[in-house]
Amino acid sequence: MPRNSLRHHLYIIIFGSHTKAGRAFDLALIVAIVSSLIVLLLESIPSIRSVWGAQLKYLEYTFTALFTIEYILRLYCSPKPSAYAKSFYGVVDLLAILPTYLAFFFPSAAFMGVIRALRIMRIFRVLKLVRYLQDSNLLLRSLLMARRKIFIFFSTVAILVTIFGALIYVIEGPKNGFTSIPQSIYWAIVTITTVGYGDLIPQTALGKAIASVTMLLGYSILAVPTGIITAELNQEMNSHKSLVKCPNCSQSGHEADALYCKHCGSELADPDKRVVAEE
Amino acid sequence: MPRNSLRHHLYIIIFGSHTKAGRAFDLALIVAIVSSLIVLLLESIPSIRSVWGAQLKYLEYTFTALFTIEYILRLYCSPKPSAYAKSFYGVVDLLAILPTYLAFFFPSAAFMGVIRALRIMRIFRVLKLVRYLQDSNLLLRSLLMARRKIFIFFSTVAILVTIFGALIYVIEGPKNGFTSIPQSIYWAIVTITTVGYGDLIPQTALGKAIASVTMLLGYSILAVPTGIITAELNQEMNSHKSLVKCPNCSQSGHEADALYCKHCGSELADPDKRVVAEE
Amino acid sequence: MPRNSLRHHLYIIIFGSHTKAGRAFDLALIVAIVSSLIVLLLESIPSIRSVWGAQLKYLEYTFTALFTIEYILRLYCSPKPSAYAKSFYGVVDLLAILPTYLAFFFPSAAFMGVIRALRIMRIFRVLKLVRYLQDSNLLLRSLLMARRKIFIFFSTVAILVTIFGALIYVIEGPKNGFTSIPQSIYWAIVTITTVGYGDLIPQTALGKAIASVTMLLGYSILAVPTGIITAELNQEMNSHKSLVKCPNCSQSGHEADALYCKHCGSELADPDKRVVAEE
Amino acid sequence: MPRNSLRHHLYIIIFGSHTKAGRAFDLALIVAIVSSLIVLLLESIPSIRSVWGAQLKYLEYTFTALFTIEYILRLYCSPKPSAYAKSFYGVVDLLAILPTYLAFFFPSAAFMGVIRALRIMRIFRVLKLVRYLQDSNLLLRSLLMARRKIFIFFSTVAILVTIFGALIYVIEGPKNGFTSIPQSIYWAIVTITTVGYGDLIPQTALGKAIASVTMLLGYSILAVPTGIITAELNQEMNSHKSLVKCPNCSQSGHEADALYCKHCGSELADPDKRVVAEE
Repeated sequence: MPRNSLRHHLYIIIFGSHTKAGRAFDLALIVAIVSSLIVLLLESIPSIRSVWGAQLKYLEYTFTALFTIEYILRLYCSPKPSAYAKSFYGVVDLLAILPTYLAFFFPSAAFMGVIRALRIMRIFRVLKLVRYLQDSNLLLRSLLMARRKIFIFFSTVAILVTIFGALIYVIEGPKNGFTSIPQSIYWAIVTITTVGYGDLIPQTALGKAIASVTMLLGYSILAVPTGIITAELNQEMNSHKSLVKCPNCSQSGHEADALYCKHCGSELADPDKRVVAEE
Repeated sequence: MPRNSLRHHLYIIIFGSHTKAGRAFDLALIVAIVSSLIVLLLESIPSIRSVWGAQLKYLEYTFTALFTIEYILRLYCSPKPSAYAKSFYGVVDLLAILPTYLAFFFPSAAFMGVIRALRIMRIFRVLKLVRYLQDSNLLLRSLLMARRKIFIFFSTVAILVTIFGALIYVIEGPKNGFTSIPQSIYWAIVTITTVGYGDLIPQTALGKAIASVTMLLGYSILAVPTGIITAELNQEMNSHKSLVKCPNCSQSGHEADALYCKHCGSELADPDKRVVAEE
Repeated sequence: MPRNSLRHHLYIIIFGSHTKAGRAFDLALIVAIVSSLIVLLLESIPSIRSVWGAQLKYLEYTFTALFTIEYILRLYCSPKPSAYAKSFYGVVDLLAILPTYLAFFFPSAAFMGVIRALRIMRIFRVLKLVRYLQDSNLLLRSLLMARRKIFIFFSTVAILVTIFGALIYVIEGPKNGFTSIPQSIYWAIVTITTVGYGDLIPQTALGKAIASVTMLLGYSILAVPTGIITAELNQEMNSHKSLVKCPNCSQSGHEADALYCKHCGSELADPDKRVVAEE
Repeated sequence: MPRNSLRHHLYIIIFGSHTKAGRAFDLALIVAIVSSLIVLLLESIPSIRSVWGAQLKYLEYTFTALFTIEYILRLYCSPKPSAYAKSFYGVVDLLAILPTYLAFFFPSAAFMGVIRALRIMRIFRVLKLVRYLQDSNLLLRSLLMARRKIFIFFSTVAILVTIFGALIYVIEGPKNGFTSIPQSIYWAIVTITTVGYGDLIPQTALGKAIASVTMLLGYSILAVPTGIITAELNQEMNSHKSLVKCPNCSQSGHEADALYCKHCGSELADPDKRVVAEE
């Protein structure tokens, strides 16, 4: 792709964020995404739709037209259009415009319009430019490190709600609203997560005892995922704590107040002046 | 037990998971367990039972037959059948098949069929093969280390709900639904765990004040088990952080970026190349 | 007090727990306390009281008589009876027997019988003998260390519920159930602690927006007390981590795998054999 | 400003807290603030207002007069009156008296009286004198350090509730109470924060499945902010752990039991006698 072609300029503006035009494009895109989401929310409120329905529909068509042009431009200026189209954001970009066309040509598919809510995920694309990403990576890395422990936790919760759901089904039974085991498992989830809607409530003394155990269990096992995430975050933050480099051997990992390199013994820069890579 | 006998081969397949046949058996068992659980769930839904009741019953008989054969084979090929029968998993395996036979011969015992939900615990047996176990052990060890602190926490919660339950019983009384102290303790548990069904609600101003204290207490003492688990997990993870072994004295426990053995001073392998035993 | 007097023997049995008779007394006391609590709970259930009321009353009189004898014996054998009577447990012991006498002589004071629920606190006295106390001390010490941070947290919550309660009172008003500011503050507490009874619910769009902010706030500030307790527990556990003493200079605080005393350089006992004082 | 003028004396009393008169003024102010808040709460209860309405109104006028005098004195004795008037506490002080005047002159603005609840924020001003501030700073600093991670967490929650709200709106629809997407997002917030009022409840099987996922998600992502705050608090507390200074090189950061300065090797003061700056 020649460096001075229109395609390359478009690429810099649409995909990049280091030029002034690129940042202006990103800002315009955020405004468009948020506005189209507000239109979607307003359109779903009956009292507003009955008065402003037509105007909101035209606004929605305008946004869809804009997003369609943007999608075509992205396809056009992308060095590998097919790779973009198949990427996560490529699919989200397509899902953001498709429902309006479907609802236009097949009115019976109007309910699919809600898929437009996925537009909110497009905001991530734009936010990638900000430096918040570094912290986001730290959080993601902690979650990834903890993924097996989290899987074990969820398996345990799944087994607990199945057993407590089956128990309450036998004890309370259909006459108290526990009409089936899946329904009773739903109750167990509502109870163990301490949500407690109150639509299904044990009526018998034994049922209330079982419910009490479920609540106390849910209340305290919450400590486990918290402990897992905290411990992983602690580890991650410690391992990245100090990125001071030794001027002699270029190795890092020194304590924040160390004066001498722990690897080769050379004197380090003055702790107050040295630039520590920010977390 | 001779190494080439049928019993030994069966033992390798049924109890082991290192051979291809063993893994295939484990996979088939997981499929059977999950399928039989789905049958149990579907059977409990009235609208499905009225239409597919007979078919589901036959499926259930098939699964019970399969699990019975498996149980007999386990007894047969186990080096110590009585030890297996008395072990935790032996009892679970028996409980997984017994209810169907009981319901068949004593129709009045049909409600016991729900015990079949315990089949979900059999999944643990099969999952033992995966490497997730290592993390599971870390979690279990942390819980065991913290068991006395957790016992103290639960005793405190038990005492708090008794006192707050008795208090609200005196203040609100039977006319507002708090018909007895056990019922009021149930309310205190629902409130202190922040479940809040809304079936029992204080009506008087004083009752609402007591309820507010209960909520704030429940809201904040949740911090205690979380702190306990987190601190234990931190300790466990730190004590296992580095499993790097010194090539000279074979001792471990070095910091991740140490270059020299802290026990004998020998040079360690290059930090980037050395294999750190994964947590 | 002469060592062989009856008073001294009684003191050893009643207050101590190192002799066989002392442990037997403690066990009998636990059984009596728990039984009397069960009687109290059963007595409060209308359907049971109407049938077994008289029997339960006689049981209650028996327990009160036993506890009265115990109280008199404690007063008799205590080296300083007045100090015992004024101590925390002395008051609890008295409160455990007083209500029954009051209800006997002044039937109108029957509602005070619930104070008997405080008997549950007597269990603490007996439990003091077990070694769980050490962990209890660790927890208490952490809470004490964090008391100022916890006070700040509760002040912040108090200010938040006042402001959000006043806000929702203005927005929703008496017509939607928010009849007064105290009532609205009660709603704010129910919401910020994520209990959510559902008895008071915002009806207007603006009220729901305020409620959403309250929920998200309550959901996330829960992280603060947890963080405080966890950090304090971590500190406490680390500072007590290693109680290995140097054989030369008798100082402790060595890392679990240290071979040489970090204070004087003497060789420490073999890590695998040395006895680390258990937490 | 001359040191012995009336203005300077007033400044010392009103803004300072190191003199006896200053502390007395602070105490009087706390009493006045809390009393005026109690008057505000009582005035909002219909049954009390109908009986004591006039008296409460006169009390309110008295407090407003007192706070007005205080505000004028603060303006008078402040070295830079305009800076005070524009400061955060200056605005809060003004908002604490303005509503009463507005309600007096424009009776239709009576609803603004609730702004008086902001008076509770004035308590912060007075509390600044206590040493609790140091811990408050530690908490604030941790929150500030974690602000970007907290922002990412809230963005994730916002995106999750939008997507789950849109999903439940399509699945349940207006006939089950989910009348619009904003209403459904409100349900998602109520569910994900585990508040669970129970005013909006999924009725269909698919809706209950979606609700279960929302609950489990909300239940477990609570672990993330807790982990963030805890890890930051840990870091903050560790970095301030030891403020022991070396008598030779005046540097701090030594471990609590270190005997020799880790920077220059000089002997440190005896650990048991040295004063560690309290956290």
